[in-house]
Amino acid sequence: MATIRDVAKEAEVSVATVSRVLNSNGYVNEDTRKKVLAAIQALNYTPNSVARSLYKKSSKTIGLIVPDIKNPFFPELARAVEDVLNKNNYTLILCNSDEKAGKEKEYIEVLKQKYVDGFIIVTSTLTASDVDGLNVPIISLDRIFESNVPIIASKNYEGARKATRYLIDIGCKKIAHIRGPLHISTADDRCFGYYDEMESNGMLEETLIANGSYDIKKTTEVTKELLLNNPDVDGIFAGNDVMAVGVLKAAEQTGRVVPDDLAVIGFDGIYLCEVTSPQLSTIAQPIYEMGYRAAETLINLIEGRFEKSQGSYSFDVQLIERQSTKRK
Amino acid sequence: MATIRDVAKEAEVSVATVSRVLNSNGYVNEDTRKKVLAAIQALNYTPNSVARSLYKKSSKTIGLIVPDIKNPFFPELARAVEDVLNKNNYTLILCNSDEKAGKEKEYIEVLKQKYVDGFIIVTSTLTASDVDGLNVPIISLDRIFESNVPIIASKNYEGARKATRYLIDIGCKKIAHIRGPLHISTADDRCFGYYDEMESNGMLEETLIANGSYDIKKTTEVTKELLLNNPDVDGIFAGNDVMAVGVLKAAEQTGRVVPDDLAVIGFDGIYLCEVTSPQLSTIAQPIYEMGYRAAETLINLIEGRFEKSQGSYSFDVQLIERQSTKRK
Repeated sequence: MATIRDVAKEAEVSVATVSRVLNSNGYVNEDTRKKVLAAIQALNYTPNSVARSLYKKSSKTIGLIVPDIKNPFFPELARAVEDVLNKNNYTLILCNSDEKAGKEKEYIEVLKQKYVDGFIIVTSTLTASDVDGLNVPIISLDRIFESNVPIIASKNYEGARKATRYLIDIGCKKIAHIRGPLHISTADDRCFGYYDEMESNGMLEETLIANGSYDIKKTTEVTKELLLNNPDVDGIFAGNDVMAVGVLKAAEQTGRVVPDDLAVIGFDGIYLCEVTSPQLSTIAQPIYEMGYRAAETLINLIEGRFEKSQGSYSFDVQLIERQSTKRK
Repeated sequence: MATIRDVAKEAEVSVATVSRVLNSNGYVNEDTRKKVLAAIQALNYTPNSVARSLYKKSSKTIGLIVPDIKNPFFPELARAVEDVLNKNNYTLILCNSDEKAGKEKEYIEVLKQKYVDGFIIVTSTLTASDVDGLNVPIISLDRIFESNVPIIASKNYEGARKATRYLIDIGCKKIAHIRGPLHISTADDRCFGYYDEMESNGMLEETLIANGSYDIKKTTEVTKELLLNNPDVDGIFAGNDVMAVGVLKAAEQTGRVVPDDLAVIGFDGIYLCEVTSPQLSTIAQPIYEMGYRAAETLINLIEGRFEKSQGSYSFDVQLIERQSTKRK
C-alpha cells in the first residue's frame, strides 16, 4: 500500500506539501497541487484514517451512550443518529451503560483515548464534573444535564400535563400514575406534570402514584397491586409506553376491560403502541427527529459552525388517541 | 499531556525501550523496566490509543453491520455483541445497511481505513469477493454466507419444519406460510422447511405461500388478502415474529378469532411475542447467545486463538407455545 512518503517522492515534493494538499490548508502552488493529485492517482494512495486521526486528533467517530439498546425507545434514536453521521462521513460507536455512572465514565475515558470527536449521551448519573474536562463537544439527549452541555429533549412536563388533562377530559374520576425510576429526569418531569395537572383541576386528593420500572413484568406486578388495592381507579397514565404495556397486562390479569373500565395512556410514541391490543394511546415524542437533531447539532459543534449556547432544543409532543382510551 | 518521548527522557532510555515495555515484547532488563514504569507513573502518561492503532494496525474496535437496528431482532443481538466487546476492552461501531450492498461495501471500506480489528455482518447481499480481500476476521451472523467465513446462526430450516409440524399436530388442515423477503437466507430456509414438512405429511397440494415483508403494515395487507381469498386457512406460520404481529392484525381485521378460527405461529422469539394479545407462539432462537457467541468467536479469531474453520456454529431452536395456537 502506498504511503504519504511514496506520494511525496513520486510528485517530487515534501511530505508536508502532500499533507497540505490532502487537508486543503496552507498555500500550495496550483502546479504543485496538480502534481500531487496525479501522484495520488498514479499510486492509488488512500490517506490512512488512523494516521490522520493522530495528526488531527480527530477520528470522524462519535460515541453514543444509551442505557440499553434493547429498550425500544433507543434503537430509533440510534438509527437517526447513525443516519446523520453516515451522511456526514462519521461513524458511530455504540455503548450500553445500564444507567451506571462507572460504566459511563469508563466509556468516556476509552473513547477519549480513541480521539472520538464528540459524544451524545443519555444519562442520569453523570455530572458536570465528569464531562467539563472533555475537550470535545457533548450533547445530552432526552435527559436534563446540569452543566452547560446542550440538551436535546422533548417537553416531558407539558406532555404529562396533557396526558393527565386528557384523562380528566374523557371523564376519568380517579387517575393513577405509574412513574418511571426515580432520579431519571424524564420520569421525574412526567411525574411532576401529572401532579401539577391533578392539582390545578382540584384533584390533589385523588393523586395516586406507584413506582414502576422500564420492565414490563415489574410494572405489571406493581400495577396489579395498585388496581387490587384501589378498585375505583378508572384511568392510568403510565410513565412510558413500555410501562403502559405492563399496565394493559395488569388490567387483563385483574379482570379490568380497557378502555371500558380503565383508560390507559403511555408516553413516547414507540411502534409498540400499535402492536398491543387494544392499541395504546400515547403522548408521542418525535423520536427520530430528536436523534437526528442531536447528531446534526453535535457535528455543527465539532466542525465549529455552532457555539455551545446554540445547541439546546426542546421538542413539542403530541397526543395520539387510540383504542386504550375512549371518550365517555 | 506526556508523550512517549517524555517518558523515555525521564527514564533515560530510548523510545523503543519504552515501547517494548508498554507492549510487553522484546527483551527489557528488569531494572530498566522498573525505571520506565516509574517514569510512566511520575508523568501520568497514558499510551495514546490512536498512536497504538497506527503502530499495531489494530484499534480494539469491531464493526457490526445490521440491516436496521430498529428491527427488534437486532437490538438484542447488538447488545450481546457489545457486552462481550466491553468485557474484552473492545468498542463497537454500529452500521445500518438497509440490506444494500453499496452501503455495506462503503462501511467496510471506511472501517478498514480505521483499522477495525474485525467485522460481524448480517448480510444477504455481500459475496465472497467483497470480503475475501479483508485482512481482518469476519463473521457472518444469522445469515448463510458463500465464503469460508464462519457462520453463527440457528437452525432455521429445522425450526420451520417444527413450526409446521406443530400446526399439523394441533389439527390445522390448511396451513399457509407468509414468507420473508426473497434472497434472505433465513427467509428462504424457513420457506423450504415449511414446504418440505407439508410434503412429508402428504399435504403438498395444501401449501399456500404469500410474500410478506419485515414490515407489520405490509404483512397485514398481504395476509388480509390471503385470508379473504382462502377462507379455509386455519393455520399460519409467519416468517418471523414481526410478521406474525401483522398476521394477528389481519385476522382481527377480517373477523377471524385467534386461536379458535386461526392458529398463528411466528419465528425468532423476540420480546414482542409477549406484548401482543393473544400472546404469540413462536420458534425461539437464542438471540442473545447468538450475538454473544459471534463476538466471542470474532475476538478469538482476532487474537489468534481460533482458526477460521473452527468458528461456525448452528444453534438449536425451541418451540414456545402461547395463546395464539391451541391444541384442538
